[in-house]
Amino acid sequence: MQNLPIFKLMIKVSILGAGNVGYHLHAVLKNIEDVQIVQWYNRTNAPLEEYAGKTSTTNQLSELKEADIYLISVSDDTIESLSLQLGERNGVVAHTAGSVALSVLKTHKNHGVFYPLQTFSTQKSVDFANIPLCLEANKPEGLALLEQLAVKMGGPTHLIDSEQRKALHIAAVFVNNFTNHLYAIGESICQEHLVPFAVLQPLIAETADKIKSLSPLDAQTGPALRNDRNTLDNHLSLLTQEAQKKLYTSLTKSIQQLHEK
Amino acid sequence: MQNLPIFKLMIKVSILGAGNVGYHLHAVLKNIEDVQIVQWYNRTNAPLEEYAGKTSTTNQLSELKEADIYLISVSDDTIESLSLQLGERNGVVAHTAGSVALSVLKTHKNHGVFYPLQTFSTQKSVDFANIPLCLEANKPEGLALLEQLAVKMGGPTHLIDSEQRKALHIAAVFVNNFTNHLYAIGESICQEHLVPFAVLQPLIAETADKIKSLSPLDAQTGPALRNDRNTLDNHLSLLTQEAQKKLYTSLTKSIQQLHEK
Repeated sequence: MQNLPIFKLMIKVSILGAGNVGYHLHAVLKNIEDVQIVQWYNRTNAPLEEYAGKTSTTNQLSELKEADIYLISVSDDTIESLSLQLGERNGVVAHTAGSVALSVLKTHKNHGVFYPLQTFSTQKSVDFANIPLCLEANKPEGLALLEQLAVKMGGPTHLIDSEQRKALHIAAVFVNNFTNHLYAIGESICQEHLVPFAVLQPLIAETADKIKSLSPLDAQTGPALRNDRNTLDNHLSLLTQEAQKKLYTSLTKSIQQLHEK
Repeated sequence: MQNLPIFKLMIKVSILGAGNVGYHLHAVLKNIEDVQIVQWYNRTNAPLEEYAGKTSTTNQLSELKEADIYLISVSDDTIESLSLQLGERNGVVAHTAGSVALSVLKTHKNHGVFYPLQTFSTQKSVDFANIPLCLEANKPEGLALLEQLAVKMGGPTHLIDSEQRKALHIAAVFVNNFTNHLYAIGESICQEHLVPFAVLQPLIAETADKIKSLSPLDAQTGPALRNDRNTLDNHLSLLTQEAQKKLYTSLTKSIQQLHEK
């Protein structure tokens, strides 16, 4: 049995999965000089077709070659079954999921997590220099190797255990998925009143920027915080959609509860 | 009775109120060459004390001099009563509030609204080049004057009527106040699990940035959208605070309702 080397000049990586995360991992890794993409696997060939010739692609796990790191970027509930099909590997078998424990990969002697905490759409390119990579591994050598890869990608790295990562994933749902939904409601209100949504974008940008220097607890403003009943009632009477009224009420209550403490 | 000039080389402005908005209006206007701050009024003298000598300040409405524009930046429910104490004025009497109708100023022959759609904290400086100014007035000459002032401040200007402005203000509550509350919940989850909140900041920035090029409807991702019951149940069981569980449930429902349509 080989040990993992502590430091690799050239890191050989295989990417498993061609969804949003796999797509962006491929896009960044193929441009890093001392990273070699050994293979890009996907269950079906279609998403990989345009890369054939540029990257070694496959839809057969039996054809997987040796790599230093196998990055599994498939849907959460298929990570484990896919990893079991990899057979015995010397490299680090790592998944990229926020809410899946390290232990689902425990059949591999070197296993880890390589979780980029960011929102990915294939329609929009991302800059990995701004993406925190949350790392975890069962052995220090594996962790060191994942960290080397992360550092080459240029962003901040964090050692985050499985329990912390789950919490981060929930927090990410609040600050990303739920926040985006509030943007969608803002857009819908604008459309209803023939106001361009662009009018709100500087406010959205400043709201996000403010908390870099101010805790969101201190940055809170608005009628809910002031318990300005006139404005609150007025807003509720002007909202035309029941779902928006409900959210308005529950978010107002939640702000007031948090700040009454 | 004088008519308002269509174009003024030098605009004389009085600011009424020294809260967040008044403070930032003063900060930007005092540095614009062809704007003269005639006076800065506040009900109490204390907030103005450090500016005495640099700006003409007063806490007596009876001492108000003539100006081209009077910007009333006081709390929503005192705008009308303050405006009634101004007496007859040739200049445009305008308030800066999102949710107050133009008509509360109707006793003035020239009245308007000069609403900067942004979140202000005295702790953080703002760049008016990024602040949309939503304008409304009862006469074209008044509107032209407000627009000249807005253009000098450097940001985008929009003609927005009272009904639209109310809608915008509600939308702003969703994308600013409520979004900031979601950030506060994210921070609280991080603190509970000893993860630095900074790990989430690139995600927050990207979420806000994404909707410049993508409608938030198309940018929506996450377990609620996918109706990923495993992750949703898992998240709910991991949240320790009842208020957070409730919000998680209502926001998840709201996302699913919006996207089932």
